Amino acid sequence: MPGSRPDLRVAAREIDLSPTETAGGPRPNPPLQVYDTGGPYTDPDAALDPARGITRVRAPWIAERAAGTTQMGHARAGVITPEMEYVALREGLEPAFVRDEIARGRAVIPANRHHPEAEPMAIGRHCKVKVNANIGNSPLSSGVPEELEKLVHAVRWGADTVMDLSTGEAIHETREWLLRNSPVPIGTVPIYQALEKAGEPEDLSWPLFRETLIEQAEQGVDYFTIHAGVRREHIPLARERLTGIVSRGGSIVAKWCQAHQAESFLYERFDEICEILAHYDITVSLGDGLRPGCVADASDAAQMGELRTLGELTERAWAHGVQVIIEGPGHVPMDQIEANMAAEREACHEAPFYTLGPIVTDIAPGYDHITSAIGAAQIGWHGTAMLCYVTPKEHLGLPNADDVRTGIVTYKAAAHAADVARGHPGARARDDALSRARYEFRWQDHFNLALDPERARAYHDETLPREAHKEA
Amino acid sequence: MPGSRPDLRVAAREIDLSPTETAGGPRPNPPLQVYDTGGPYTDPDAALDPARGITRVRAPWIAERAAGTTQMGHARAGVITPEMEYVALREGLEPAFVRDEIARGRAVIPANRHHPEAEPMAIGRHCKVKVNANIGNSPLSSGVPEELEKLVHAVRWGADTVMDLSTGEAIHETREWLLRNSPVPIGTVPIYQALEKAGEPEDLSWPLFRETLIEQAEQGVDYFTIHAGVRREHIPLARERLTGIVSRGGSIVAKWCQAHQAESFLYERFDEICEILAHYDITVSLGDGLRPGCVADASDAAQMGELRTLGELTERAWAHGVQVIIEGPGHVPMDQIEANMAAEREACHEAPFYTLGPIVTDIAPGYDHITSAIGAAQIGWHGTAMLCYVTPKEHLGLPNADDVRTGIVTYKAAAHAADVARGHPGARARDDALSRARYEFRWQDHFNLALDPERARAYHDETLPREAHKEA
Repeated sequence: MPGSRPDLRVAAREIDLSPTETAGGPRPNPPLQVYDTGGPYTDPDAALDPARGITRVRAPWIAERAAGTTQMGHARAGVITPEMEYVALREGLEPAFVRDEIARGRAVIPANRHHPEAEPMAIGRHCKVKVNANIGNSPLSSGVPEELEKLVHAVRWGADTVMDLSTGEAIHETREWLLRNSPVPIGTVPIYQALEKAGEPEDLSWPLFRETLIEQAEQGVDYFTIHAGVRREHIPLARERLTGIVSRGGSIVAKWCQAHQAESFLYERFDEICEILAHYDITVSLGDGLRPGCVADASDAAQMGELRTLGELTERAWAHGVQVIIEGPGHVPMDQIEANMAAEREACHEAPFYTLGPIVTDIAPGYDHITSAIGAAQIGWHGTAMLCYVTPKEHLGLPNADDVRTGIVTYKAAAHAADVARGHPGARARDDALSRARYEFRWQDHFNLALDPERARAYHDETLPREAHKEA
Repeated sequence: MPGSRPDLRVAAREIDLSPTETAGGPRPNPPLQVYDTGGPYTDPDAALDPARGITRVRAPWIAERAAGTTQMGHARAGVITPEMEYVALREGLEPAFVRDEIARGRAVIPANRHHPEAEPMAIGRHCKVKVNANIGNSPLSSGVPEELEKLVHAVRWGADTVMDLSTGEAIHETREWLLRNSPVPIGTVPIYQALEKAGEPEDLSWPLFRETLIEQAEQGVDYFTIHAGVRREHIPLARERLTGIVSRGGSIVAKWCQAHQAESFLYERFDEICEILAHYDITVSLGDGLRPGCVADASDAAQMGELRTLGELTERAWAHGVQVIIEGPGHVPMDQIEANMAAEREACHEAPFYTLGPIVTDIAPGYDHITSAIGAAQIGWHGTAMLCYVTPKEHLGLPNADDVRTGIVTYKAAAHAADVARGHPGARARDDALSRARYEFRWQDHFNLALDPERARAYHDETLPREAHKEA
């Protein structure tokens, strides 16, 4: 889709459809255009060379702007940036509406000025619900080529953003390869790398954390998870829990606070952090270090106490022009989901909510992509802007390529169901096209319109392999 | 669990737990008792011989009663039958409460007097949410041993009832083997067999249907799906739809009505049908022949018109003392789910709702066990009493054994999430026991408490195979 300037062309994917057979002869069906996250990886004509990186689509736009200006700052000044226009075209929204949503903090465009390869996308309650996929090596596992393969795999299946949670060797180098080859925003949890440097949680310090932030910011990370909402007063509230503190970041911060008998430097230095983020236009994802780890602990005082602090930090970040998203649970029974969304909305002034699931029952390890998709679809319908995927290996082990695919497609379905339930403009077009194809036994269209055409085709062929069965 | 008479012993399963390691030494964890549907198939001491059938647990109770009396009739007369007591013990409810729910039609115990092998279970909005699994051969597929294996597989994974939807050869014989070996109620759609006899829908007749009903009733089928709510005036309403009539039973009835320009014999002869059902105490499952086949068609005039007729038929069945459940959609976007539940509740006087999913988006064939579990969990929370499972092969092909397992476990998770959200007494005990085991790294307990211990264990061992990793 062309935009207002020649260097603004929005990626989308067209699905060709075969004609409907009618008594009066074939009646053509127009192709269906769908939102696509794959960048060059879903473009059959793209030349790819990981060592060179992918096209720097945003380079000319960034060059026109001073460092230290953010999408939020431009929006407040009334400017529609090329990124906003790109997002508007991609979402089917008015550019001025996108600008206004960003100005008031209800949507974000996570786009570091050092990551020109990213195709602009927005996270916000009036945008399509987005899906994040986590990748990253661990001391036990994979290297750079494997992580790059996971990234490509993730965006082809539809991940809107990817978080690199690497903790093993070569964190810096892995991230560099990912950023130079990623058409979607990349998020990280900088305290993980800072801890690799420090060794023990109590040895973390503001200078070390600051150095890590800048290192990652320079590389081009688009959003940082920062657990600045874990305050000393909240930590004892987690002691009564069935499963205590389960967030890795949250438990690092809690250990530091207890060792030093002080508020964390993440909270104390939050304004300085925001100055760094504003310089690069990095979005802050305020981590929920005290998220519940089981349904019994959902919506408790620790979680809600931290949420109020996140609301306070949201206002502080916005004062710096820094874009904000809020991370949310985790594990929540269905009857508490709508209230969790409402609590975030109120405490955090409508900053976009970004939830992990939530899982609605704890009794199905091996199926937690499903128990969490049940919660994710619901909270997405009620207004959550981005859903962090969960794979079938959650709580059990590390996902392989097929688990990543299953997790992403499951979450794309949940996010889309939320768009349909919200009545998002045009959301149902793909459902209706697929249902019509199904009703008319146009099997190839049925497969091609599916979120996972390969799996749909394989399942069909398993019992009804002959071509004839695809005609009738 | 022993009941009030020596021949009343309720099946349950106990999960042994290992102790928690504490500074003061190991602290024992009591075993957890869970609802179990497996009958002799989950009893390590049971001697099994399919040719002889399983234990006829209900035989002495049935022998004490006259034919033509139903659980509903007894309940209305103030009698607590052994079946009601069994259900009360199984569910953790008061026997008098179960009796009262059955008397007013808000719960059913599907238990044909010719199926003494079935362990009593109840379907109702104040009972645990139940799961049905469909099996059955087709002209293309399996024989008796395969269907028997599917039945055993289904109840071991937790199916509360099983519907035999066979359409191929040896329907009668297959059903006989299933009934004599099934510890759970068996449902069928008698018009499928009647159609096998008739050849074409328009050649169906009341005598043929009646003969088929009696044939199946004599064998011991516990509930019949009957599409008596498809009336002539509703059929034109389905013409405006994207996907018309997708229910197989509904389309058979609609074809018959159009060929004969008359109301169906299912509707016209409904009182005679009820007389037969009352004789055996068979529950009627009023089929939704006009259920929507895609989200675009959800909650339309055809669906709602039929639902009102189902309400009228409910009252007619109750007048005969016949127990009733109501079948529901199918495909419903999330924002219409609660309203669908409310509409059923009002139109059908709180007769238990039994839904197929519903699927909340049409774009994920290959993942429809998930898109439907999202809807199923929600509608279960809002009061649906039984969920008909959907497998990953839905819309694409016939499920194999692993698809059946995935479908059942997915639905057990959805049903349990609904119980937790409803605040059903004791529902969260298993979640909490598993979460505690997870937090304390008691891996074997973690696996054993899972709905699918084998899959949880296999996923864990895939990346962390060493025993050491199960200790820490």
